[in-house]
Amino acid sequence: MSDGATPGKATSGKAPGPLARLSINQETIKQWSLPDLAAGCTAAGITQVGLWRAPVQEYGVRRAARLMRDSGLTVTSLCRGGFFTASDAGDRAAALDDNRRAIDEAATLGTGTLVLVSGGLPPGDRDIAAARERVAGAIAVLAPYAAERGVRLAVEPLHPMYASDRCVVSTLGQALDVAERFPAEQVGVVVDTYHVWWDDTAAAQIVRAGTGGRIACFQVADWVTPLPEGVLLGRGQLGDGCVDLRGFREQVDAAGYRGPVEVEIFSPALWARDGAEVLAEIAERYRRHVR
Amino acid sequence: MSDGATPGKATSGKAPGPLARLSINQETIKQWSLPDLAAGCTAAGITQVGLWRAPVQEYGVRRAARLMRDSGLTVTSLCRGGFFTASDAGDRAAALDDNRRAIDEAATLGTGTLVLVSGGLPPGDRDIAAARERVAGAIAVLAPYAAERGVRLAVEPLHPMYASDRCVVSTLGQALDVAERFPAEQVGVVVDTYHVWWDDTAAAQIVRAGTGGRIACFQVADWVTPLPEGVLLGRGQLGDGCVDLRGFREQVDAAGYRGPVEVEIFSPALWARDGAEVLAEIAERYRRHVR
Repeated sequence: MSDGATPGKATSGKAPGPLARLSINQETIKQWSLPDLAAGCTAAGITQVGLWRAPVQEYGVRRAARLMRDSGLTVTSLCRGGFFTASDAGDRAAALDDNRRAIDEAATLGTGTLVLVSGGLPPGDRDIAAARERVAGAIAVLAPYAAERGVRLAVEPLHPMYASDRCVVSTLGQALDVAERFPAEQVGVVVDTYHVWWDDTAAAQIVRAGTGGRIACFQVADWVTPLPEGVLLGRGQLGDGCVDLRGFREQVDAAGYRGPVEVEIFSPALWARDGAEVLAEIAERYRRHVR
Repeated sequence: MSDGATPGKATSGKAPGPLARLSINQETIKQWSLPDLAAGCTAAGITQVGLWRAPVQEYGVRRAARLMRDSGLTVTSLCRGGFFTASDAGDRAAALDDNRRAIDEAATLGTGTLVLVSGGLPPGDRDIAAARERVAGAIAVLAPYAAERGVRLAVEPLHPMYASDRCVVSTLGQALDVAERFPAEQVGVVVDTYHVWWDDTAAAQIVRAGTGGRIACFQVADWVTPLPEGVLLGRGQLGDGCVDLRGFREQVDAAGYRGPVEVEIFSPALWARDGAEVLAEIAERYRRHVR
């Protein structure tokens, strides 16, 4: 791993550079192919990336693993497994199979973290508590399989606006309630500022997560309004919104987290721009608002 | 107050009719003028309505009060006061003045409940905890003024997707944290299924609210997706979404609530239809999914 220095800046070989903890989730600059991402990050002195299953599968999982390795890049997480709230037995079995493949892919990529988005309520279902129980049941099946392959499952709470159609796990507290049923080395949680910023219990839950060694991944994005239709692609560039990003980074650090700070922004405005320009802006914003 | 019987159905003069607790928030059928609303509800055997400040002001507050009284309608709530998160002293004073007017209007209308939507974060502000404190500070100023006029302030937690631009009070727990600083007869909370359905702590908070005599208003709407741009006008007709409406009604009842069940749905699809047809559908859905 490099020292994460920005290009053109002289740094000692030992002192960690300002971008040492920064990881770029590939969905943030999805106009880039995997080779573009590898080259762009390397050129910018960034040594860590978060990957998504679909583009990795399209490129080839082994080939992607080799590309990252040859570029000196660490894969900090693979997004995403999950979507196991189906009550139908066949759908449930299919979801478990798909998650085993996701675990295999994470292992091949050399990342220890598979992010899980739990899934929403099946059509016509009004029992969100039961759906959350099915999430825990699926993790019980998958966690040992993942652990054997060196992969930890990371339960990600998504903002409550996604509770019905995407993720019935809505708060860090709920995610920890699930994760703590399993050994910490097998199941952790994701702390993503976009999803938890509004929650006045988040600070206490971050302490709980850190104390238990459960913070598997820390992701940052800012909250901006108005939200777009479907509310999926409305995340803000770091510093453009109302989230105290540095405050959250300090909280996870104080709770003992020493891992990467992964920037994951879904924004058509960023996707429409030149990738290198977006990356440079993220690095600058990261230094100003997060580090 | 009538027995709330549906038109065309014979009921005894004593047994409460199936619509006895139903209240129609006027924003649900906003294609109707206030006289339309009064006539339509009376014709349908509905005896309670929730009103909004802007249309009431336009019609005339005293005139609206007389219309409701002459129609035999009870005003269950006035929406809404609040929006007092400004940090600027002038803006804050203006908000307090406006809320005093809202209290006066509620008193004139004869309703004991003024719904408060707290307001979001001022531009550039990233301190949501401080904004919540300013809400409590404003209520401290207003609660005695309201109490003198027979009006109780009802703090409404809005779904966390509104936390930045509309309401920094996002959960029933937070609303109670604010309300409980004041006497129960002065400050209560609103339980609105649309805002709290996703929250696994809501059941316990409803018990807390009921035990303390804090449930000032119970509102129902269903949750449907995809959410529209701006996420304000995406509420679902009762039964169209994933909320266990009857379960929530049973919870507030079990917590000791005996007040109205106010239907508040913001939906362009309902607004585009004939008002009487919408009202009949609401009454039918209410009986099937709530009562």
